[in-house]
Amino acid sequence: MSEPPRPAPRQVRPAIRAMRGYTPGEQAIDCVKLNTNESAWPPSPRVHEVLRAVADDHLRLYPDPRAERLRAAAAEVFGVPAEAILAGNGSDDCLTILFRTLLDPGDRVACPWPTYGLYDELAAIQGVAIEHVDWARDWRLPSVLPRLGAKLLILANPNNPSGTVVPVAELRRLADAHDGILAVDEAYVDFCPGASLLPCLAAHPNLVVLRSFSKSYALAGARLGLMFAAPALIEQCMKVKDSYNVNRLTQELGLAALADREHHRQLVERTLAERARLERELAAFGWQWPESGANFLFCRVGEHAGELYRALKARGILVRWWDRPQLREHLRISVGTPAQSDRLLAALRALLAP
Amino acid sequence: MSEPPRPAPRQVRPAIRAMRGYTPGEQAIDCVKLNTNESAWPPSPRVHEVLRAVADDHLRLYPDPRAERLRAAAAEVFGVPAEAILAGNGSDDCLTILFRTLLDPGDRVACPWPTYGLYDELAAIQGVAIEHVDWARDWRLPSVLPRLGAKLLILANPNNPSGTVVPVAELRRLADAHDGILAVDEAYVDFCPGASLLPCLAAHPNLVVLRSFSKSYALAGARLGLMFAAPALIEQCMKVKDSYNVNRLTQELGLAALADREHHRQLVERTLAERARLERELAAFGWQWPESGANFLFCRVGEHAGELYRALKARGILVRWWDRPQLREHLRISVGTPAQSDRLLAALRALLAP
Repeated sequence: MSEPPRPAPRQVRPAIRAMRGYTPGEQAIDCVKLNTNESAWPPSPRVHEVLRAVADDHLRLYPDPRAERLRAAAAEVFGVPAEAILAGNGSDDCLTILFRTLLDPGDRVACPWPTYGLYDELAAIQGVAIEHVDWARDWRLPSVLPRLGAKLLILANPNNPSGTVVPVAELRRLADAHDGILAVDEAYVDFCPGASLLPCLAAHPNLVVLRSFSKSYALAGARLGLMFAAPALIEQCMKVKDSYNVNRLTQELGLAALADREHHRQLVERTLAERARLERELAAFGWQWPESGANFLFCRVGEHAGELYRALKARGILVRWWDRPQLREHLRISVGTPAQSDRLLAALRALLAP
Repeated sequence: MSEPPRPAPRQVRPAIRAMRGYTPGEQAIDCVKLNTNESAWPPSPRVHEVLRAVADDHLRLYPDPRAERLRAAAAEVFGVPAEAILAGNGSDDCLTILFRTLLDPGDRVACPWPTYGLYDELAAIQGVAIEHVDWARDWRLPSVLPRLGAKLLILANPNNPSGTVVPVAELRRLADAHDGILAVDEAYVDFCPGASLLPCLAAHPNLVVLRSFSKSYALAGARLGLMFAAPALIEQCMKVKDSYNVNRLTQELGLAALADREHHRQLVERTLAERARLERELAAFGWQWPESGANFLFCRVGEHAGELYRALKARGILVRWWDRPQLREHLRISVGTPAQSDRLLAALRALLAP
């Protein structure tokens, strides 16, 4: 049981007082952790080489405020100009910077729903209303989106928690039809080849693409994300970010991870292979899930989903469950290593035995 | 020559468009870097041990969102309850969180001036006006501060760029007399024993104290800062911070640095010894500076300060100079190692020879 909240000091903004606050997935140790969609495999060995080589001045001196070497390397890998890139302390930092750059009280932001809960929190902190528009049937794009007059439309592609993917052509039509900024959060896009909008970035001045190093680069612990947009928008966002928002180690780790293309390819390949196997095995329980383009499955489990979540947790296996409408009959399960999947499947067999 | 700014996309908030953006000190390499007040000496060797011991899961998994182990260790070292502490991605992150938690458009923030330029930027990003009140004679506290009706008063103690210190008793009287929040940025306070307000934190529910690991812990590259305040205010700030704002490595490095009290003591001692020597040597140039409680000296150099800054830079020695009123006749010089001081002094002797 958590303690009751303390009365907020009166100087706190009403918008903040009214918030409950975002609840990140549990960060337990010594368990099979399939609740926050990290990579099941470690990052490139080059990343560990970087740590072993850290010299005294590396920690003693401030980092490069604009992360120029990292941006140059990312420009190379992602095929965009470095001026179209901003590096953040995780893609959460990039999202925070974007919301703070664009949204004044009275502005409107909209997103298809359900999606990543953080967008709601960021809108609340900015004191703006966020409009949820239910996904169309089979997690297709709601046709009303471009007609909402929102200054910012944001969506995750692949979507979280559904794992579903909107085709590039549809998102490009949305960018053309929408008068404001369209932000596409591509945290999971490496698990769905061909789904990224980055190759079309230059054609859409109102498009923002976000990438994370927490999934396909296995660097959730290091905090690194990238925002891609027209240089004119990146320039404004640079004013809003903290001066030294990405620490020196993380800039070096990001460089090492980006350089090791073969490790990245293998990590994605392993994840996709294990996702396919998990799907075959989970089918035995009669569950259903939409086709996933991510490193997790959004399983429709039924009324007992919450109970099952707790029973798995009691056995040291964490998956994600939300006690809210549209979600409470589902479990979101990250793709783990084969050994982690085995433990999950064994537990499920025991718990779901007739 | 930098390029002319690109026209801002029309979706960008007017408050952001109007900003010039904060200019951090130059981050050059291969030079004597005395411009951003980092520690001249490396961090605790335990910090490097932590890096050598990093295991795969350390980088693969998300960090603890609330940095509980770090907060518990800091509570022990600083003698306050863990619930009175928030860990940030540098104290800049803590400042950003504080401004976002407190300030709505129409609210007012004030600070004695000149001081750390970042407070202006954070106010501008929040869309609030910041009132500058000139320091009283000899860098004493302006008596008008508690009568301004500001929701937030903020000051650095020791102050940056002056290095001057306001006595604890005066700040406690200010906290009592002021109806809003008083934030005291103690980034440099370890270089001025007895000047911290932390022992009085519990007695002042409207007091916020900020600490940095970039100076006396030599971890500027790792980004770690702490905010101390009444638990009721910390609880609200927790809603505003990014979920995973302090990465896993930095949490571990901070723990290692906090644990090595002897290294910290030596680092402060060396800095104070070298500051004393630098003062003796600089006196030969006829310069003056206010008594410093920090790891830098704010030297009144005269009209040719800008010229001297550029001449030093041409010789590979960076100090800080601002081309703005009240500051442009000064150089701010960080305390370096004896070898760095030697190079600075030799260059000054050559440049200032009659």
